[in-house]
Amino acid sequence: MHIRFITTGGTIDKIYFDALSQFEVGESVVQHILTDGLVDLEYDVVSLFQKDSLEISDMDRKVLLDYIAADDATRYVITHGTDTMPETAAVLSDIDGKTIVLTGALTPARVRTTDAVFNVGMAVAAAQVAEPGVYIAMSGQVFEAGAVRKNRAENCFEATDRN
Amino acid sequence: MHIRFITTGGTIDKIYFDALSQFEVGESVVQHILTDGLVDLEYDVVSLFQKDSLEISDMDRKVLLDYIAADDATRYVITHGTDTMPETAAVLSDIDGKTIVLTGALTPARVRTTDAVFNVGMAVAAAQVAEPGVYIAMSGQVFEAGAVRKNRAENCFEATDRN
Amino acid sequence: MHIRFITTGGTIDKIYFDALSQFEVGESVVQHILTDGLVDLEYDVVSLFQKDSLEISDMDRKVLLDYIAADDATRYVITHGTDTMPETAAVLSDIDGKTIVLTGALTPARVRTTDAVFNVGMAVAAAQVAEPGVYIAMSGQVFEAGAVRKNRAENCFEATDRN
Amino acid sequence: MHIRFITTGGTIDKIYFDALSQFEVGESVVQHILTDGLVDLEYDVVSLFQKDSLEISDMDRKVLLDYIAADDATRYVITHGTDTMPETAAVLSDIDGKTIVLTGALTPARVRTTDAVFNVGMAVAAAQVAEPGVYIAMSGQVFEAGAVRKNRAENCFEATDRN
Repeated sequence: MHIRFITTGGTIDKIYFDALSQFEVGESVVQHILTDGLVDLEYDVVSLFQKDSLEISDMDRKVLLDYIAADDATRYVITHGTDTMPETAAVLSDIDGKTIVLTGALTPARVRTTDAVFNVGMAVAAAQVAEPGVYIAMSGQVFEAGAVRKNRAENCFEATDRN
Repeated sequence: MHIRFITTGGTIDKIYFDALSQFEVGESVVQHILTDGLVDLEYDVVSLFQKDSLEISDMDRKVLLDYIAADDATRYVITHGTDTMPETAAVLSDIDGKTIVLTGALTPARVRTTDAVFNVGMAVAAAQVAEPGVYIAMSGQVFEAGAVRKNRAENCFEATDRN
Repeated sequence: MHIRFITTGGTIDKIYFDALSQFEVGESVVQHILTDGLVDLEYDVVSLFQKDSLEISDMDRKVLLDYIAADDATRYVITHGTDTMPETAAVLSDIDGKTIVLTGALTPARVRTTDAVFNVGMAVAAAQVAEPGVYIAMSGQVFEAGAVRKNRAENCFEATDRN
Repeated sequence: MHIRFITTGGTIDKIYFDALSQFEVGESVVQHILTDGLVDLEYDVVSLFQKDSLEISDMDRKVLLDYIAADDATRYVITHGTDTMPETAAVLSDIDGKTIVLTGALTPARVRTTDAVFNVGMAVAAAQVAEPGVYIAMSGQVFEAGAVRKNRAENCFEATDRN
């Protein structure tokens, strides 16, 4: 069992910079989360982007799609900003025969009450257990790509068949 | 989608009591973990025991087995001490048609670098995604009941087909 | 021994709001810090402002000055944004016979690696031990008002007699 | 301004060891606390013991007393177990012309809701601001050596003139 982690930025990796009085995307926290999680699994971490998901372009999604399509791994966890996570998941749906789980956080991992650790835990389990396909692990749920949206007003992810 | 959490104690729930200069099993942390994890899922939490897993008896396992067998839920996450988690998982294997995931922690949830949050995240995903059966989510992996042991010397869980 | 805490906002109280993708000043964290610190002291907490210190006006400083001058307490800890903390301290220097310690944080208290808890601890001790006067407790030091500045480039407070 | 930190063990440094299902005194956390506290002060850290304070003997107190008496620093923060902190403080009272502050924690520093960071912050301020003498910084207060005890039942430190 091997999982390849791909980091692209997003709230999960945000750091507070006092000099700017604002948060910016920093180094990926995935390695720290896996270390604290006592993860005893073969894995590696590839950093592709370090962007807010609103800045992830269609070009970026093409880069990510091509990277995974040409890559030799079969199980992926992708950390990604939440605002366009469903779009990226939809683009990756063209890939066959791989289990790809996107996750991220609504609160930065460096904040005490973050959802990041829980979400990465969900993604790691889903990447091992789920059938090949593309999924989003957020809000305590594992959604299939194409059937999920972020509800910005309620600060959660939800299935698109909800009313 | 509904998940029933059953708490039984274990390291995950340990609190440090200065008056005794030692840790003891305290109130379950599961609710806090689900709140921080921004879990937006139907669930409830049942507290059955508050014990170190070395103190979980065969009688206790029978109580747990009977409880789940007679219960109406179909998806369970059980928090449990690590030392006898594989034994409890094996006992529960007699149950058909339900997805049951045991998890816990090697470091108490109240400690900063705990694996508890990651592990509960894994268990929540596995309880949704895995086929009916009994599983253990620890050490970054989802193991099937009956094929996993705790390696006390290396402080991890591993598949029993390892050498 | 009694200490009156006055909160005015600043980085120490910042919360991340995903809906805005930014941090904003939230509820004061002082009560949480004192609870975790197992503080067994008579105290109360007064919330005067909830502002970034760049937004604290001369009018606000006058309000704060008048409040303390007319108040019956003799020991104060004031949480304040860092950018204009030295200016506010200088204004309060007109007050005689009271021990007033300003503190805050360069990293929000809700971030895991915050300096907030350490700083409030310093301020509480200084408010008890120091002679009447106005002080700033930041960067591991207790500075006298009028002889301290924030070094934004190095992200620290320093005595103004340094070169 | 220079502060010398001397670490002697105690609850503040306790780590949970799953293999033993218990907490033991581990590496000192003082350096981590000073780093997170963004302390910009000249200091060094000397590790003398790594013991529960119930195991600190009169011989150990003599070693500590002789060490400080012969040492060239004038300001000290000593981290120490809580049970015999008052006894050690009393022994050190023989030293003239130095400011010595003992502190520790009722909850280990590695636990999320620890009082350790707050207490070390208090001690660092007191070591700078207080007159030469020996003090204990615990429970949100700065006590003079010889006039303080631990109230084990209420899990706090208190002045001995209380009833």
